[in-house]
Amino acid sequence: MSTFWSPPVRELVPYTPGEQPVIPGLVKLNTNENPYPPSPRVIEAIAAAAQDGLQLYPDPQARAFRQAVANHHGLDVGQVFAGNGSDEVLAHAFFAFFRQDRPILMPDISYSFYKVYCGLYGIEATLVPLDADMGIDVAQYQAACGGVVIANPNAPTGSGLPLAQVEQLLRQQPDRVVLVDEAYVDFGGDSAMALINRYPNLLVVQTLSKSRSLAGLRVGFAAGQRHLIEGLERVKDSFNSYPLDRLALAGAVAAYEDSAYFEATRAAVIRSRELLRLQLQELGFEVLPSQANFLMVRHPGHDAATLAADLRAQRILVRHFKLPRIEQYLRISIGTPAQCTALVDACRKLLGA
Amino acid sequence: MSTFWSPPVRELVPYTPGEQPVIPGLVKLNTNENPYPPSPRVIEAIAAAAQDGLQLYPDPQARAFRQAVANHHGLDVGQVFAGNGSDEVLAHAFFAFFRQDRPILMPDISYSFYKVYCGLYGIEATLVPLDADMGIDVAQYQAACGGVVIANPNAPTGSGLPLAQVEQLLRQQPDRVVLVDEAYVDFGGDSAMALINRYPNLLVVQTLSKSRSLAGLRVGFAAGQRHLIEGLERVKDSFNSYPLDRLALAGAVAAYEDSAYFEATRAAVIRSRELLRLQLQELGFEVLPSQANFLMVRHPGHDAATLAADLRAQRILVRHFKLPRIEQYLRISIGTPAQCTALVDACRKLLGA
Repeated sequence: MSTFWSPPVRELVPYTPGEQPVIPGLVKLNTNENPYPPSPRVIEAIAAAAQDGLQLYPDPQARAFRQAVANHHGLDVGQVFAGNGSDEVLAHAFFAFFRQDRPILMPDISYSFYKVYCGLYGIEATLVPLDADMGIDVAQYQAACGGVVIANPNAPTGSGLPLAQVEQLLRQQPDRVVLVDEAYVDFGGDSAMALINRYPNLLVVQTLSKSRSLAGLRVGFAAGQRHLIEGLERVKDSFNSYPLDRLALAGAVAAYEDSAYFEATRAAVIRSRELLRLQLQELGFEVLPSQANFLMVRHPGHDAATLAADLRAQRILVRHFKLPRIEQYLRISIGTPAQCTALVDACRKLLGA
Repeated sequence: MSTFWSPPVRELVPYTPGEQPVIPGLVKLNTNENPYPPSPRVIEAIAAAAQDGLQLYPDPQARAFRQAVANHHGLDVGQVFAGNGSDEVLAHAFFAFFRQDRPILMPDISYSFYKVYCGLYGIEATLVPLDADMGIDVAQYQAACGGVVIANPNAPTGSGLPLAQVEQLLRQQPDRVVLVDEAYVDFGGDSAMALINRYPNLLVVQTLSKSRSLAGLRVGFAAGQRHLIEGLERVKDSFNSYPLDRLALAGAVAAYEDSAYFEATRAAVIRSRELLRLQLQELGFEVLPSQANFLMVRHPGHDAATLAADLRAQRILVRHFKLPRIEQYLRISIGTPAQCTALVDACRKLLGA
């Protein structure tokens, strides 16, 4: 705390990212990264871009990348907004749309950064409890509000919401932005991208950190009708004109050009997830439905915090949230087959199964 | 304008970056980029980083880069804050320190993004006129205020403020942050880095975009006492945990490792600047003093906007600001010797000299 700080800064409760320890041989299943490296074409494109004009500013409009995304989703380039990871895109979206005279609505259990953005920008939020099965009940999102934000699939639960229910949300709140954060959608969720031209209040946010294996490159985007993208551009151009560097732009474009690699790696992650689900269930874990690249699990006979610590002692990192309703759960990112096997073996030992 | 926007977004006046056209053979002297590519070691480091774990998040604390900066300036790693270009660092600093109950003070002519940040965060600013020689008169910065921001050397004028006057600013405002934006300092300005341990209210901001030839990589930083850096970290961790990607971190560290390259290229830019100054003066231009990698010039017999347009017709881009007091000036970035010669030749023709 310092007397030099702006008064609101004293009240901030920042986000706590998952640990990024550098430990040799670590099985890192705590931050939902893709276990596979990016496409070789991404790496080539980056190496080429590094030799080509790094002393010059990048395209402030990130046009080539936005065009690649637009092509992939059947949108117009003006319907795509690019940012330095989806976290930056989300921050700008909260600023651009949710500073209204009513609280926004969001699930009580979801990506914990949403509450942090609210704190940063002085936005009130009403937390809507997940139902007993840890799912989103859209009927609970009908109150007059300043906007709605959900993750679909939700994090850290992994459960996806069918598109018909996303549409119900959009129809319930025609005058407010409904932000659907699809960070994990490529692992089996239903994307709302196809609804964009029908709903002026829909903003879809995606990231290249998960299904495109590019957490280390920091690229995310939003898609929506032009008037929403313009709002985001106004905020971005009042904050940082060039959020995406030349290497990130080159790598991101190349990632969208290699569809075959994308399809193969996401299919491998989905296969590993389904196998891991069965193996963990066999060990007595309860596993929430997941359409993401992680599983949310609990064991009726074992404390989650203890299990996380015991796994860590064996150099296996999973994520444990000390939060109401989910403190007995572990969130386990899907690793390579070898990493998943290491996890299952370690659990088997710990449980004495 | 859209009814979905947060009301304050309707009032924003975003920053307009200099053009980034892609025209073959263009002599691009409009955005103060370095005419030399980055050190070959930077390019090697990036190529290596691209092959090493891009699927994993980067270090959210950017520790290796902050350590490199700290070593270079004789600081502690905790006295350095890293961001996605100095624009992001500046934005966070305005949020962290300048949302006070009084207006901040800044020069009427300076980096135009400062006013934009004020608009973004609802900060009032009192503009203090530059003196008749287009210099900062620190005696005009004594009023009770919410903070002070200056660029040193100033942009777009290029004039530097001696360190004794920076100290006077710091002593005049002991209870408020004095932000000294040193984007151009490596081209001959007096850095305030050495004052950090003596002044708890000093925040110095620098960028790798200019003297390190890395505008395309988006890396900037702030240096100050620990309590100021903590304020910035709170804001950053409420906005985006991972603002610097793995490639930017690797390249930025390598840039600080190659001191010889840095010294050689900045000396070359300074030499070209001094030669260009003489050549333009010979053509009748008035040239403001510059300790930066650009010259601010005007010609008593020629309209600046017309000159800029005529140069553009010859594929030479310089920056013209349609702003009070400087609308008869051109800001010319220092290019390679060949680019400077092309500019001088074109001016000679246009002026019929």
